[in-house]
Amino acid sequence: MKNLVLASSGSVHGSGYLEYLLPTVDKLYKDVEEILFIPYAQPSGISYDDYTDAVQEAVSTLGIEVKGIHEFKDAKTAIKNAKGIFVGGGNTFLLVSKLYEFDLWDLLKEVIVQGTPYLGTSAGSNITGLTMHTTNDMPIVLPPSFNTLGIVPFNFNAHFIPADTNSTHRGETRETRIKEFQSIVSIPVLGIKEGSWLRVKGDDIFLRGGKEAYWFENKEIKIIDTNTNIKA
Amino acid sequence: MKNLVLASSGSVHGSGYLEYLLPTVDKLYKDVEEILFIPYAQPSGISYDDYTDAVQEAVSTLGIEVKGIHEFKDAKTAIKNAKGIFVGGGNTFLLVSKLYEFDLWDLLKEVIVQGTPYLGTSAGSNITGLTMHTTNDMPIVLPPSFNTLGIVPFNFNAHFIPADTNSTHRGETRETRIKEFQSIVSIPVLGIKEGSWLRVKGDDIFLRGGKEAYWFENKEIKIIDTNTNIKA
Repeated sequence: MKNLVLASSGSVHGSGYLEYLLPTVDKLYKDVEEILFIPYAQPSGISYDDYTDAVQEAVSTLGIEVKGIHEFKDAKTAIKNAKGIFVGGGNTFLLVSKLYEFDLWDLLKEVIVQGTPYLGTSAGSNITGLTMHTTNDMPIVLPPSFNTLGIVPFNFNAHFIPADTNSTHRGETRETRIKEFQSIVSIPVLGIKEGSWLRVKGDDIFLRGGKEAYWFENKEIKIIDTNTNIKA
Repeated sequence: MKNLVLASSGSVHGSGYLEYLLPTVDKLYKDVEEILFIPYAQPSGISYDDYTDAVQEAVSTLGIEVKGIHEFKDAKTAIKNAKGIFVGGGNTFLLVSKLYEFDLWDLLKEVIVQGTPYLGTSAGSNITGLTMHTTNDMPIVLPPSFNTLGIVPFNFNAHFIPADTNSTHRGETRETRIKEFQSIVSIPVLGIKEGSWLRVKGDDIFLRGGKEAYWFENKEIKIIDTNTNIKA
């Protein structure tokens, strides 16, 4: 049974890395003593080692050991044997490119569907959608495809912020960008605010974190209340 | 001799489409009675016809006729014969994909280098850089390559805004994104604010519009004053 926590962001204003998520992470990884961390998104170009260390420090109070996928001889075996997986945020283009380079998509989907507990933040959540077309990230590398895991039947827009109606800036708003996407591809998009996450259990997809989310489909935006089951 | 105006944005707060640029456009297109408009970036998914009409309306006081490239039987002949070219803003991924689809890159570069007056706004400026890796746009389609015209020896970040140090938002700032890019590819990046443009004449590249710009290279950010020749 699918068992995932898909968060909009790795941190929220005024607290440490993963701090607001720790109780949720604790439940997700109950009975898990070691997790596999996938650092490929490299926020700000941080090294795999330093990123893995930061995660280890963040979850140390939970008694969980963190191993970076780059520490293993064979990434596929590491995924197969993992008791829990965490894919951290950063640049979605980089993350997706690496997963194609190492041919990890099918296996990753297989273990997630079979029930390996999965935590994603930001880019790590984006890749559980149908495609990465609706990332906010800068295209710093060109992946061979934008197709992603399709664990949930929609796309993410993480770090979602509604348009600031007082802004004098003329760059596109998130709404404009998502509508441009949907003028080409008719995939629904979930705009999810920082501090929110999805709790996926089997076919249920609950919105958690106390904030509303925004559902883009058929040229309309629907507001989704916290604790709603999005599957419904 | 190269003769271009490369603007950060098609409009600025409080004035109509292209309005702030009209005196500059008038000089760029002096002696030109008809320009070729390339609407492929389709902001908000607007149709090619509607986008072309909007440009025609914006420049009508200059006595310039605007023809959309989609109105011609053969896009290459249209570019070859154009007395002036304007590539409008919108989605850079879409624009770049179409230019690859119709195989227009080499010809576009050729006529620009030979001196056809070229106006670019936002996405239309981005494509005159070395690559489109530093666009802010959403990757709504996957182009076969991120390589662009290389008319100027750097990349653009249009609609540039320095980080808001009071922000509680945890999504990446422009600086972070550009540094992530430069941790992979060592191409200099010019962050150019709305209301600014580059005036390219031969090898000279003057910053105009009364605002400073931001030069990213070798992990450093240099502030460039208005009216500086960037070539220097």
